[in-house]
Amino acid sequence: MKYINEIRIGDHVNSTYLCKSKTSGVTKTGKNFESLVLQDKTGSVDGKIWDVGSAGIEDFDALDYIDVVAEVVDFNGPQLNIKRVRKCREGEYDPRDYLPVSSRDIDEMYGELMDLVGLVRNKYLKALLEEFFVKDEDFIKQFRFSSAAKSVHHGFVGGLLEHTVSVAGLCRIYADKYKFLNRDLLITAALLHDVGKVREFSSFPENDYTDEGNLLGHIVMGSEMIGEKAKNIAGFPLSLENELKHCILAHHGKLEFGSPKKPALVEAVALNYADDLDAKMETFKEILNGTTEKGSWLGFNKLFESNLRATIGEE
Amino acid sequence: MKYINEIRIGDHVNSTYLCKSKTSGVTKTGKNFESLVLQDKTGSVDGKIWDVGSAGIEDFDALDYIDVVAEVVDFNGPQLNIKRVRKCREGEYDPRDYLPVSSRDIDEMYGELMDLVGLVRNKYLKALLEEFFVKDEDFIKQFRFSSAAKSVHHGFVGGLLEHTVSVAGLCRIYADKYKFLNRDLLITAALLHDVGKVREFSSFPENDYTDEGNLLGHIVMGSEMIGEKAKNIAGFPLSLENELKHCILAHHGKLEFGSPKKPALVEAVALNYADDLDAKMETFKEILNGTTEKGSWLGFNKLFESNLRATIGEE
Amino acid sequence: MKYINEIRIGDHVNSTYLCKSKTSGVTKTGKNFESLVLQDKTGSVDGKIWDVGSAGIEDFDALDYIDVVAEVVDFNGPQLNIKRVRKCREGEYDPRDYLPVSSRDIDEMYGELMDLVGLVRNKYLKALLEEFFVKDEDFIKQFRFSSAAKSVHHGFVGGLLEHTVSVAGLCRIYADKYKFLNRDLLITAALLHDVGKVREFSSFPENDYTDEGNLLGHIVMGSEMIGEKAKNIAGFPLSLENELKHCILAHHGKLEFGSPKKPALVEAVALNYADDLDAKMETFKEILNGTTEKGSWLGFNKLFESNLRATIGEE
Amino acid sequence: MKYINEIRIGDHVNSTYLCKSKTSGVTKTGKNFESLVLQDKTGSVDGKIWDVGSAGIEDFDALDYIDVVAEVVDFNGPQLNIKRVRKCREGEYDPRDYLPVSSRDIDEMYGELMDLVGLVRNKYLKALLEEFFVKDEDFIKQFRFSSAAKSVHHGFVGGLLEHTVSVAGLCRIYADKYKFLNRDLLITAALLHDVGKVREFSSFPENDYTDEGNLLGHIVMGSEMIGEKAKNIAGFPLSLENELKHCILAHHGKLEFGSPKKPALVEAVALNYADDLDAKMETFKEILNGTTEKGSWLGFNKLFESNLRATIGEE
Amino acid sequence: MKYINEIRIGDHVNSTYLCKSKTSGVTKTGKNFESLVLQDKTGSVDGKIWDVGSAGIEDFDALDYIDVVAEVVDFNGPQLNIKRVRKCREGEYDPRDYLPVSSRDIDEMYGELMDLVGLVRNKYLKALLEEFFVKDEDFIKQFRFSSAAKSVHHGFVGGLLEHTVSVAGLCRIYADKYKFLNRDLLITAALLHDVGKVREFSSFPENDYTDEGNLLGHIVMGSEMIGEKAKNIAGFPLSLENELKHCILAHHGKLEFGSPKKPALVEAVALNYADDLDAKMETFKEILNGTTEKGSWLGFNKLFESNLRATIGEE
Amino acid sequence: MKYINEIRIGDHVNSTYLCKSKTSGVTKTGKNFESLVLQDKTGSVDGKIWDVGSAGIEDFDALDYIDVVAEVVDFNGPQLNIKRVRKCREGEYDPRDYLPVSSRDIDEMYGELMDLVGLVRNKYLKALLEEFFVKDEDFIKQFRFSSAAKSVHHGFVGGLLEHTVSVAGLCRIYADKYKFLNRDLLITAALLHDVGKVREFSSFPENDYTDEGNLLGHIVMGSEMIGEKAKNIAGFPLSLENELKHCILAHHGKLEFGSPKKPALVEAVALNYADDLDAKMETFKEILNGTTEKGSWLGFNKLFESNLRATIGEE
Repeated sequence: MKYINEIRIGDHVNSTYLCKSKTSGVTKTGKNFESLVLQDKTGSVDGKIWDVGSAGIEDFDALDYIDVVAEVVDFNGPQLNIKRVRKCREGEYDPRDYLPVSSRDIDEMYGELMDLVGLVRNKYLKALLEEFFVKDEDFIKQFRFSSAAKSVHHGFVGGLLEHTVSVAGLCRIYADKYKFLNRDLLITAALLHDVGKVREFSSFPENDYTDEGNLLGHIVMGSEMIGEKAKNIAGFPLSLENELKHCILAHHGKLEFGSPKKPALVEAVALNYADDLDAKMETFKEILNGTTEKGSWLGFNKLFESNLRATIGEE
Repeated sequence: MKYINEIRIGDHVNSTYLCKSKTSGVTKTGKNFESLVLQDKTGSVDGKIWDVGSAGIEDFDALDYIDVVAEVVDFNGPQLNIKRVRKCREGEYDPRDYLPVSSRDIDEMYGELMDLVGLVRNKYLKALLEEFFVKDEDFIKQFRFSSAAKSVHHGFVGGLLEHTVSVAGLCRIYADKYKFLNRDLLITAALLHDVGKVREFSSFPENDYTDEGNLLGHIVMGSEMIGEKAKNIAGFPLSLENELKHCILAHHGKLEFGSPKKPALVEAVALNYADDLDAKMETFKEILNGTTEKGSWLGFNKLFESNLRATIGEE
Repeated sequence: MKYINEIRIGDHVNSTYLCKSKTSGVTKTGKNFESLVLQDKTGSVDGKIWDVGSAGIEDFDALDYIDVVAEVVDFNGPQLNIKRVRKCREGEYDPRDYLPVSSRDIDEMYGELMDLVGLVRNKYLKALLEEFFVKDEDFIKQFRFSSAAKSVHHGFVGGLLEHTVSVAGLCRIYADKYKFLNRDLLITAALLHDVGKVREFSSFPENDYTDEGNLLGHIVMGSEMIGEKAKNIAGFPLSLENELKHCILAHHGKLEFGSPKKPALVEAVALNYADDLDAKMETFKEILNGTTEKGSWLGFNKLFESNLRATIGEE
Repeated sequence: MKYINEIRIGDHVNSTYLCKSKTSGVTKTGKNFESLVLQDKTGSVDGKIWDVGSAGIEDFDALDYIDVVAEVVDFNGPQLNIKRVRKCREGEYDPRDYLPVSSRDIDEMYGELMDLVGLVRNKYLKALLEEFFVKDEDFIKQFRFSSAAKSVHHGFVGGLLEHTVSVAGLCRIYADKYKFLNRDLLITAALLHDVGKVREFSSFPENDYTDEGNLLGHIVMGSEMIGEKAKNIAGFPLSLENELKHCILAHHGKLEFGSPKKPALVEAVALNYADDLDAKMETFKEILNGTTEKGSWLGFNKLFESNLRATIGEE
Repeated sequence: MKYINEIRIGDHVNSTYLCKSKTSGVTKTGKNFESLVLQDKTGSVDGKIWDVGSAGIEDFDALDYIDVVAEVVDFNGPQLNIKRVRKCREGEYDPRDYLPVSSRDIDEMYGELMDLVGLVRNKYLKALLEEFFVKDEDFIKQFRFSSAAKSVHHGFVGGLLEHTVSVAGLCRIYADKYKFLNRDLLITAALLHDVGKVREFSSFPENDYTDEGNLLGHIVMGSEMIGEKAKNIAGFPLSLENELKHCILAHHGKLEFGSPKKPALVEAVALNYADDLDAKMETFKEILNGTTEKGSWLGFNKLFESNLRATIGEE
Repeated sequence: MKYINEIRIGDHVNSTYLCKSKTSGVTKTGKNFESLVLQDKTGSVDGKIWDVGSAGIEDFDALDYIDVVAEVVDFNGPQLNIKRVRKCREGEYDPRDYLPVSSRDIDEMYGELMDLVGLVRNKYLKALLEEFFVKDEDFIKQFRFSSAAKSVHHGFVGGLLEHTVSVAGLCRIYADKYKFLNRDLLITAALLHDVGKVREFSSFPENDYTDEGNLLGHIVMGSEMIGEKAKNIAGFPLSLENELKHCILAHHGKLEFGSPKKPALVEAVALNYADDLDAKMETFKEILNGTTEKGSWLGFNKLFESNLRATIGEE
């Protein structure tokens, strides 16, 4: 396979790419053509199909993986003049070649998540966590694959899992350090704080807000999902369910960030700080990854409301 | 019955009052006594029980209705020196003599509410409304009796019903006027927008925030209640359920007012305006009711962020 | 007449258009030419006059209606190569072919406005309304023709009238519903709330902020206009004039929206809600008019601070 | 005359005071009495009239100057037991003994104001200033006597004049320093910027917001007053009137401070700075006047949003 | 010694207390007396010296430790009628009996701080830390004794040390977890982030803002102190000094919280989160310590902008 | 010398320009070339060096002054095809031909600054000013040459000096007018308020934020510089140093504008107003300088949050 960042004008290409978008057009002479954007993990490239009805051009849609045969021409940079195209079947390609993925192994992270589940001793909370992370296979599959965001931070396959394990790990440390925190409640809330995101974002490669994501948001959906699972557990104490839901609802910390309640419990405060810190650290890391030169200023960043730079540290 | 605003120093009293609060104390000479605050719809008065263990003093708690025999003494104004007291049974008193109540008849308002239900033609929404307002007797009882607020506006028995009928009536008018509004969705959302308040506030005479009210709030609880009822209705379209929940979630109009989502549908915008207008009109009305003189300035009001006055209008 | 959205490369055109702008240039060879933007209600198109001094090219200015004879050439799309041009006289064209206009009939709306005037029983307020809407012919002409905004909402011929009738209609309903509102004051204030806009915007086709519009704004100018008219009415009570002016000054509801006073009278509160609701409904309607697909998200909207979508409603 | 700060328990008093307030009461034995607050420039003291109907007690109202004969008794400090009282005629007392007054001579300040008027060379602006400060005797009388605020700064007789002269003096200096400022416009605007305050505040001793002050505010009223005077001057250029009014409307600098327009002209910017600086300097001066010890912290001040202290400067 | 919370009316007292305040007065009969507030770690009590000039009454000032002989009388609760008083010498009393102190041992915490210093490997940063925490004995004494605040959180003897160790401990964990953080810079910044507080607050028992604390604040003073110490270290890299100072200046995270710069380095971001979390946890802990009942709501808290309650957790 | 705004296609050019930027590229045929931006005070122009290694092309860097020989070709406007280039030595060119400079003479302004220094009578403050403006030659050179900003206002050679003299001149006037201001402190603070800018901005022609400028800011650096100089003056009173530093720290007036302290001294308030006024006047002047037509609206300006226009004034 030829990665997109290796394509040069004049090449002949025969490879599989993810078709990010597909639109139809009409030339000045009245002929139909199609414009594609092809993507793999190294970048994206434009492609054109001029002979739409011809033999080698099979049916496919945007977001399909397609096998293309093309000549690379120069049109303000390389452009694929596509001669043949067909839709690939699952198994013919490895999605990790085409999508942003976590740098950490998903199974390993899931193992860490289960270790954290193992720390919870309250029988109701433990049972609730198992409803999500052990028994609900559809949820598990989505949760492992999902991103934690459309862009911003952790916007890659496995991102939701990576962020969740990291936040819950911080919360475990906070519970050790600040003894008055309710350890079981805090770890459980951390592990569940973003479960609503499996419904807020469509799965990769699209990874965009769903209709219910836009209308309801992951905070309210996450609280609802907890309520539904808790119904399956006999004797789940109502006050415990409400405290847990409160932590989910309040975890953005401020009304203007979309939490319908400000943190009223100390565990909700701690969760808010852990979530926010992990998001900011990952965001800054992703910004720094794009730079090579220590000590150079990166320009004004809207999220941090500051001009940023990488630390020099010592000489 | 002697109303509290008619009690004079030197009177002998034998009447039933609501015991708003009850606390114990010890005199300088080491004797136990109890301090009460007694209330009816005309005001409140302090009472003392000096002979706590004596024959005529039966057991009761704060928020009980109690029958008292007392002499009225002067202690910076009238105070009841209580000789005998007993807890009343339901039926011995009429709560409307003791609590703030709507000036409108509750049955009549409920009839108007059912008329509005009758306007909804979408079969799923109509079925949902009936789940609440026809089939769920516990809910109906609470809804008719509940207030719409702890203080601010509509803070009286029947206030939730009065406010709901008023907002839904406005929405009906808006749907007639702005034809692009979805009439069924808007009226349904209006009728259900505050149903979570039956769980946010404890019932009268307490009428204070409940634990779940503080932790979750009526917006999220209302959305959940709708989700639970919708499960009982076969084939309820998911997109319709989400649109309806969105209207509930967004009806405060701004994140900083506790809505986890800003209005994204035009019906959510309209509902927000109707709810806000009705609340402001009722609040202003309650402020004006406390004044007698047209044209006099009432001082700075925090909600309206302005010095207010009653209108003179014409001469 | 050939509408602009029907013009094709290679066409010969002989039609009347509104000249939106006109600028002079010099070719590389040193020859003068003129660049025009021509407009009708279907869109706009560029035009060039290469032979500026030639016989068929008569004098005209930007914002004149002009009759052009031209060939349509291809210059990144169609462009009119104008051979002949002359300024049209009033009567030769129908402005509604060239400008955005209300979808409602202006006479009919004015009739509704007069019906609302007829509801006012206070003799001073009625006389004041007649000073504006019956006796002042210049004002009436401007008011019927004016827009309610430069862009945003009701930005079309008749928009001010349409918005005014709609807001006053809402206020009439509010006065019926909330009996403590002073009906005469509220309807009068609604009918006059935006009269300053006839001075804030220049007339169509320009429809831009005037100098005094920028310096003083329609709120203050509207209050002044009321003061001037009230002087013509013997015995107009001062407190009534001040209450009415207050409603005008406060109708934006917040200082940061340009009102020099927050609403202090309940009628000022009600007017603010009516004005705001009508503006938001019209704005949302104009946004939805641009979309065809129910259920599709329209992207983030600055005014509503939300991603918006059209309602699906039922299935 | 015995000043209030010299009154001691046991004194016999026969002096004239301003009656700040007067309320009626009933004793426990059912007898009518009257409670007064008496004021002079040194402070205030309570007084009681126990024999309301007796011979020496003549009619008077709150805000009258009254001559009292009284014994000073001890009631948590001195209290006047009033035996005789009568209302004084104008001329019997000097208001400056009873009201806060400017430390500067009013005639001298008015002379400075007229010098500033003399600097204006534009004939229309000069004529306008003379309409106010030379020809309108009622206005002049009010303007000389009025305060610039209810409390805050310059809240004393002559305060409006003192503040006006000071602001206009600053503007004169700014016009000398920043040559691109229009000197005539700026000085005129400074002299007229607060003329609306003669209608916003009632005259001393009351010095409270008037009804129209609350409803319209001095900014809008000042602009209107200018419009009315300008009508008397033949040929007053409209653009000049609008620029001047704009400076008045914008002189608070921000919408949230009650200006309906932000400064759009450089003179409006300069006027805003001069007005704000003079108000802040006077406020700080009044705060410092209440302190004796250099270097001591005065506590958090709301207006300055800071703990304040007097400067030590040098040692 | 009799602790203040054990004093009863009728007791005879002979103990040492901290004199929190001392004011002079004159009785109605013209005699001088002195009013004291006496304090120990269990509370405070009023005292009076009626015979100011008598033999047993020696000289002392507010904030002295004094030995008193007194009778306890009843004046709306117990009050000390002081017969004899003398100022104590250092050594006669243990300040920990009179002041709020950390619940942790100061030497132990200082040991932890030195362990954290030991982790820093960069030779310049290590040398700088030793300038403060090893070599500067005056600083060390103040730092160990100082509070971290006037009230809010850690407002007790040893509070600054406790908070510093806690924040630096968090930062050590963050550096382990987020590998791209510069560990040496972050730990150093954490250990020094509040050193300016030894100059911002006067020492106990006063513990109030100093003059320079009010004028300059601990953020700027801390940055200056670092600059001065760094001058003592040959070859200290300028960029490293600036990065460290930046972390100090930015550690409040937002301009409106008194940081003159927003965090621009990732270590400054991490420090801000650690500082804020530790402050919030300690504050919540202090709030919870005042309550006994799990599950009861504690009322609206300004810092957290929420009604708070202790967690129930499980049943 | 041929100024850049006089260069025409086809010209032969032999002149000295400032090389604002320099980047390398590779042509499609694999040959190296260099792209330059050349600048003088009249504008900027692109240049290309196609024969990078040829004889006439000597070494130089961005921000050097270079002497070029070139032909002017047409590439969407004039472009210099550079044949020969060499770096100039200091003295071969006059920087004022290449950089924005103050319209006022630098020596004359420095004379005014020294006059202001001469007004200060407090011996410590006078000595401090002389440390900066008389004794520190490096500082003086930088201060005379520096700009007061990267863009916004006074962004030219001599701008810092011009702004400083102007602000201190205003403060002198304020001290004359408001007698309670400490004249020596205020004038000293004004003269030193922006000294940190010589370190915040790199020198011309770059004039960009330095690393320490970004990390620490001119406010904190200015305060530090004062502290360092004060150390050289025996007996400099600490309270005076702190008051002066406070004025520097607080001179932006609000925390959100980067001041770590709000003004607590009246001189800090006055300095804030003088600084802000001078900045706004200069900014408005620079905006007006770009316009020719009196009375025309200049569009929305972000700094002034308003559409602006030049004043017409009179007719």
